Amino acid sequence: MEEKKVKVVIVGAGFGGIAMARALRRSPVDVLLIDQHNYHNFQPLMYQVATGGLEPGSIAYPVRRIFRYNKNITFRMGKVREVVPSENLLKTNIGDIPFDYLIIATGSQNNFFNFEPVKDRLLALKSIPEALNMRSFIFQNMEKALANVDDEPLEEIMNIAIVGGGPAGIELAGAISEMKRYVLPKDFPELDLSMMSINLYEAAPVLLSAMSEEASEKSLEYLKQLGVNVFLNTRVREYDGSLITLEDGSSFRTDTVIWTAGVKGAPLEGLPGESIVGGNRIAVNEYNQVAGTGNIFAIGDVAAHISMDNPKGLPMLAPVAQQQGRHLAKNIKRVVKGKSMLPFEYLDKGVMATIGRRKAVVDLKVLKFQGTFAWLVWMFVHIMSLVGFRNKIVAFLDWMVNYFTYDRPLGLIIRPYKRNGNG
Amino acid sequence: MEEKKVKVVIVGAGFGGIAMARALRRSPVDVLLIDQHNYHNFQPLMYQVATGGLEPGSIAYPVRRIFRYNKNITFRMGKVREVVPSENLLKTNIGDIPFDYLIIATGSQNNFFNFEPVKDRLLALKSIPEALNMRSFIFQNMEKALANVDDEPLEEIMNIAIVGGGPAGIELAGAISEMKRYVLPKDFPELDLSMMSINLYEAAPVLLSAMSEEASEKSLEYLKQLGVNVFLNTRVREYDGSLITLEDGSSFRTDTVIWTAGVKGAPLEGLPGESIVGGNRIAVNEYNQVAGTGNIFAIGDVAAHISMDNPKGLPMLAPVAQQQGRHLAKNIKRVVKGKSMLPFEYLDKGVMATIGRRKAVVDLKVLKFQGTFAWLVWMFVHIMSLVGFRNKIVAFLDWMVNYFTYDRPLGLIIRPYKRNGNG
Repeated sequence: MEEKKVKVVIVGAGFGGIAMARALRRSPVDVLLIDQHNYHNFQPLMYQVATGGLEPGSIAYPVRRIFRYNKNITFRMGKVREVVPSENLLKTNIGDIPFDYLIIATGSQNNFFNFEPVKDRLLALKSIPEALNMRSFIFQNMEKALANVDDEPLEEIMNIAIVGGGPAGIELAGAISEMKRYVLPKDFPELDLSMMSINLYEAAPVLLSAMSEEASEKSLEYLKQLGVNVFLNTRVREYDGSLITLEDGSSFRTDTVIWTAGVKGAPLEGLPGESIVGGNRIAVNEYNQVAGTGNIFAIGDVAAHISMDNPKGLPMLAPVAQQQGRHLAKNIKRVVKGKSMLPFEYLDKGVMATIGRRKAVVDLKVLKFQGTFAWLVWMFVHIMSLVGFRNKIVAFLDWMVNYFTYDRPLGLIIRPYKRNGNG
Repeated sequence: MEEKKVKVVIVGAGFGGIAMARALRRSPVDVLLIDQHNYHNFQPLMYQVATGGLEPGSIAYPVRRIFRYNKNITFRMGKVREVVPSENLLKTNIGDIPFDYLIIATGSQNNFFNFEPVKDRLLALKSIPEALNMRSFIFQNMEKALANVDDEPLEEIMNIAIVGGGPAGIELAGAISEMKRYVLPKDFPELDLSMMSINLYEAAPVLLSAMSEEASEKSLEYLKQLGVNVFLNTRVREYDGSLITLEDGSSFRTDTVIWTAGVKGAPLEGLPGESIVGGNRIAVNEYNQVAGTGNIFAIGDVAAHISMDNPKGLPMLAPVAQQQGRHLAKNIKRVVKGKSMLPFEYLDKGVMATIGRRKAVVDLKVLKFQGTFAWLVWMFVHIMSLVGFRNKIVAFLDWMVNYFTYDRPLGLIIRPYKRNGNG
């Protein structure tokens, strides 16, 4: 008689969910992985899709293909409605799914803070459709500036504001300023590009506040070299669709406001109320167990293991999610064998960000460096991290085209984006 | 004093418009090219985008980049509202545009005939968004078949009907049946693919009726080999969103009906009524002059030069449009120099279509061949016709992946498609 296998259900096919499922590939458990999309996407390169450097197909990969040869791993595309811990049941739009162990790897979502009411007037970067909308919107605006038939002032059409000086914000600012410098003069020779300002607003006194001082300073220097107007210690107060107003009362006219100023956890409905902590994340212990449950775990951006060392939990980074996924897979295997779980420890291998051509910053544990070599390291690491041989080659090719021609290969407005909200 | 240059306005950046503008690159005329999209797309490979063989970025190319180094050619993204021949004026959403010569190269659009009222329930292939919707819909349906929570019968979800046995229809049928054979069993091992039928309906007694008898017969043989159910002499009578009914009363249950059964011209508003002839095309003379006008021309799919040899006008093919574009450029240059125009003559270099791996048909003037060599010729010609080095390489790479892995590289549901209409 066949023994009934333990059923592990993982919600979310991001870095954490994929890493965990991979680590369970040859284990005596049944894994069901569920995500609302049929692909895994490589979020760190989303800004490249938004700025026409890469195609969506290069940073996304169908989940089914990843696990094609793993009989114990099943994928379902579906949306989770809620978890019912008392019944070990997950309610979804494709039916009820029972579990022995549930892993919540649902990641994070945009946090618009007090801009929530006007979020339809902002551009964001948390999904591929959002990135494609941003790409379309920027190129549509250049066409609009040329046609110039509305009463909208040219500056409003051409200016771009980026809110947030974290990795996404500075990477976007760098890519857009390189587009302004190298691509737009060739494609739109009739436009007076001196009318286009790129402003970046950061509430903290430094850029990349999670990185080293050297990285923060160098990235500021790079952005200035590229002509980005960086405003530190600067909070935005409001945005009406055409005018962004700062705390000090000054304002900037633009219809393009890119929001990278915050993310928050995307937990599931149905968890014990006390398990949701700051940043809308799920409180977990050192085994990634959700507070108040026994067989429910959370990993990655959505999970916060609050400790003396990390009073806000670990940073929302792909390596944290991946390491937690792999570690939890190991723990599940131990539990199935009747062994006890081991506590998770994060191994920080370093962080990096890129600003433009031969301009990147890398913080390793013992070494920090910036410039051309950092940029080469950044490219190598990111290309090698893409899933699939085809994607690595196409990304490499597109970056080579970009590097040698000073051009971005993709400026197609496939689905014109009509922003909601007035303005 | 600078002489005022002759102003040539070309509407449409398809094969005809691009070929004509290219041919006027170093001429003493000012060219304004206007299109509602900012890219030229390679329509003959649209079915590859729809079936996940190529990315949209591989078959589309920004128009501005094509003419980047040509000072006398200007591009504008805009929609034409109407032409006012008496004032030599083109009215558009980006303002009024005066012209000395107007060239209408607006191509063709879907013709749903008596299915017009239910067109929202059909999938079509005349634009990149339509192709992406088709791709999403097919993959969404496979996910839906697996989830199987609605009352919809599995056959309805999995079956696919293609209406029309021209090049687009047979290329789609071939690509979808190869997907069923090689891709779906790997990605959806739990699905019973024997429940999936692919039916192709053609009203004429042969497939590819515009090609040779050999091509028609061989394409039928190929499709049968691939497991496509081909119905010749078969007209579809109606479709209610879940059941397609044929003239003979028999029916087929499917929620996926792909319409490739016809196109019609997409002329501009404002032309003399008598200039619009069969197939909604614009009647032109041997100089591509629009009947009843002097300085307005039409080329490509939208133009019909009706003659003894071609009682229905020339076929709607890329080479016709390209040759007419180049020829008309020559004539415009002659007229500017005070010379008379020369009549257009179409040089038929042959036609080809591909059905699947090593299955293609080629009709040249003196030689007709089918099979592996035809397939290699088809691939070579199509790759070389793509605009831009990057696109040629990426398409080649994606086809190599397809060929050697028996896999289509791209199965991403980026924007899930919700079909309108009930059913």
